[in-house]
Amino acid sequence: MVLDRKLKTLLNMKVQENSVAIVGWEEGSAGQIHSWLEKMGIYHIACFVNPTDKALRIDNRKIRREASQFSYPTKNSFKDKPLLNSSKWAPSLKEYGIKKVLITTDDLHHRFKQIHYADENDFELINAVHPTALVMEDAIIKKNVILNARAFVGYRAEVFSGSIIDSGSQIDHHCVIKYCVTIDPGVVMAGNVTIGDFSTVHTGSVIKNRIQIGNNSIIGAGSVIVEDVPNNVTVVGVPGKIIRHH
Amino acid sequence: MVLDRKLKTLLNMKVQENSVAIVGWEEGSAGQIHSWLEKMGIYHIACFVNPTDKALRIDNRKIRREASQFSYPTKNSFKDKPLLNSSKWAPSLKEYGIKKVLITTDDLHHRFKQIHYADENDFELINAVHPTALVMEDAIIKKNVILNARAFVGYRAEVFSGSIIDSGSQIDHHCVIKYCVTIDPGVVMAGNVTIGDFSTVHTGSVIKNRIQIGNNSIIGAGSVIVEDVPNNVTVVGVPGKIIRHH
Amino acid sequence: MVLDRKLKTLLNMKVQENSVAIVGWEEGSAGQIHSWLEKMGIYHIACFVNPTDKALRIDNRKIRREASQFSYPTKNSFKDKPLLNSSKWAPSLKEYGIKKVLITTDDLHHRFKQIHYADENDFELINAVHPTALVMEDAIIKKNVILNARAFVGYRAEVFSGSIIDSGSQIDHHCVIKYCVTIDPGVVMAGNVTIGDFSTVHTGSVIKNRIQIGNNSIIGAGSVIVEDVPNNVTVVGVPGKIIRHH
Repeated sequence: MVLDRKLKTLLNMKVQENSVAIVGWEEGSAGQIHSWLEKMGIYHIACFVNPTDKALRIDNRKIRREASQFSYPTKNSFKDKPLLNSSKWAPSLKEYGIKKVLITTDDLHHRFKQIHYADENDFELINAVHPTALVMEDAIIKKNVILNARAFVGYRAEVFSGSIIDSGSQIDHHCVIKYCVTIDPGVVMAGNVTIGDFSTVHTGSVIKNRIQIGNNSIIGAGSVIVEDVPNNVTVVGVPGKIIRHH
Repeated sequence: MVLDRKLKTLLNMKVQENSVAIVGWEEGSAGQIHSWLEKMGIYHIACFVNPTDKALRIDNRKIRREASQFSYPTKNSFKDKPLLNSSKWAPSLKEYGIKKVLITTDDLHHRFKQIHYADENDFELINAVHPTALVMEDAIIKKNVILNARAFVGYRAEVFSGSIIDSGSQIDHHCVIKYCVTIDPGVVMAGNVTIGDFSTVHTGSVIKNRIQIGNNSIIGAGSVIVEDVPNNVTVVGVPGKIIRHH
Repeated sequence: MVLDRKLKTLLNMKVQENSVAIVGWEEGSAGQIHSWLEKMGIYHIACFVNPTDKALRIDNRKIRREASQFSYPTKNSFKDKPLLNSSKWAPSLKEYGIKKVLITTDDLHHRFKQIHYADENDFELINAVHPTALVMEDAIIKKNVILNARAFVGYRAEVFSGSIIDSGSQIDHHCVIKYCVTIDPGVVMAGNVTIGDFSTVHTGSVIKNRIQIGNNSIIGAGSVIVEDVPNNVTVVGVPGKIIRHH
């Protein structure tokens, strides 16, 4: 990857000990996190990374969208920060003195690969915990965990690396959220629930206490889960039924 | 409208620069908002307005109700504040020096008419935002918006004039809530949802990301909306189905 | 009941004016409450009470559980505090100078009996209200009420003795929660709902405004209640249907 001069200048000017590169460029995840993470005063966001070797081309004229504010990446910039396009971003970030990263990509397996790549290259994976998130006593939060506004992690619950708990979602006491899970907004999980690696729980789902959700499974929006869910399935409805094996 | 002497006296004594008249008199909306709005110390509630030309007659002996505390309006008073009964309340409020109003009426079209009437008569329409409501970065809150306790308005979400977000409801990033919408308690909306003018989303409904709800539509309590909803329909269930056109 | 010497020593050392005995020993209720109640600095937790005459024997090798931290009671101890095994615990607690108790047992009728026993023996029944619980204006909270993290009790709502509102549950304005009710996490109740004595509302249920739930009834997880529920039934589904009379 060759950084163009503008990018170099921007990066050179700004990198500090607490500088972080956010891997990801989507407005609803990287963009949203950026909006509050820098304000907290703990980290400086040095740049975003598009972890592919092509610059992004988003034709936003085709996108139906009501909101009047929405940031799309351009060739070398996202949200007034430099955007690096490279699948092998580690050497470039190192060259500019950036030692911390946060992986925010939506695709779970891609997220895992990026975390692995960061780890291999000795980057520090940070957590992004919104000030209104509530983490109860003895909860365990591993690395590269994102807790959005008002996320709740109960007493002795555990959130493993690469998992994202979105706004207002509630992971009650002794729940275990394994690696690279996404919990969408407004999900409610009673106590002692486990969510397996690479699973997704969509918006507003409800999971009864002691339920075990397998790996690689998907819980549809608004589902109510009252029985264990195996690996590699999609479950929807009330009560949740398997509608697909994958 | 002729104000009786008692009302005049009460108003005369109390009106200040920050005085507000609350249009509406229902305990669950106007009454509830009054209970915290004045305490915040920003506004003084000068009076309530019943925007019809008849005094209210509520026979509370007929109402089944378990709660031991409930305020009903009397002829000229609600919650120990003067109550004005008039469809043309603007001249009276002006006479007493009240320049700010908050329209709280439950009926959406009636709410719209009252907001229009206030605007025409150069009243300032205030917002009522509970201290525990959370408004994220770059969110846009227009005029006469009510955010009850723990309402959540996400990153770059927009709430247009006359809309009410009730307790604990969550409007996630880039959602757009158009004019004179009511969102009941405990609703969860993922990102990029639009709710059209004069629509109502009832208690505890869940709306998937990117869904568009039309104008004048009603989403029943506890519904899960995974497809767009047209104008002028009532939708209920999981997943939500149209049960009525209106 | 004969206290063994170790127990006596522990109790003798620690009892203060603000000491409380927690009746109950389950990790998800007594254990969880202990984790934040003592930290609040209002009460000192002197001991737990297993209100039966046998010491507990829990074979935790048989329990499938993912969480890495989980406290089980031993013969005379729970969470590094003394554990008393006695159905008639009042004289022992009195002997050691403990005057306050909190009853946390999961079984509703058993909870009621323990509250009655505490009352008869002139113990003070305390409330446990997490600092993030939100109690709105004019709400009425009786005795031995537990409000977990982020529980919400609306304007003029009422919670009677022995009731537990679990994390994130929302009891809106003018709701009445009668005696010895359990509201699981993430429940949403609109205004003017009544829940009868000894009823349980399971995780993530939604209850429409003005609904009356009878005594001794059970609302299944994720149910949506849009009609009144009689006494002594179990209701599940969307909309909730009676599946059992008891």
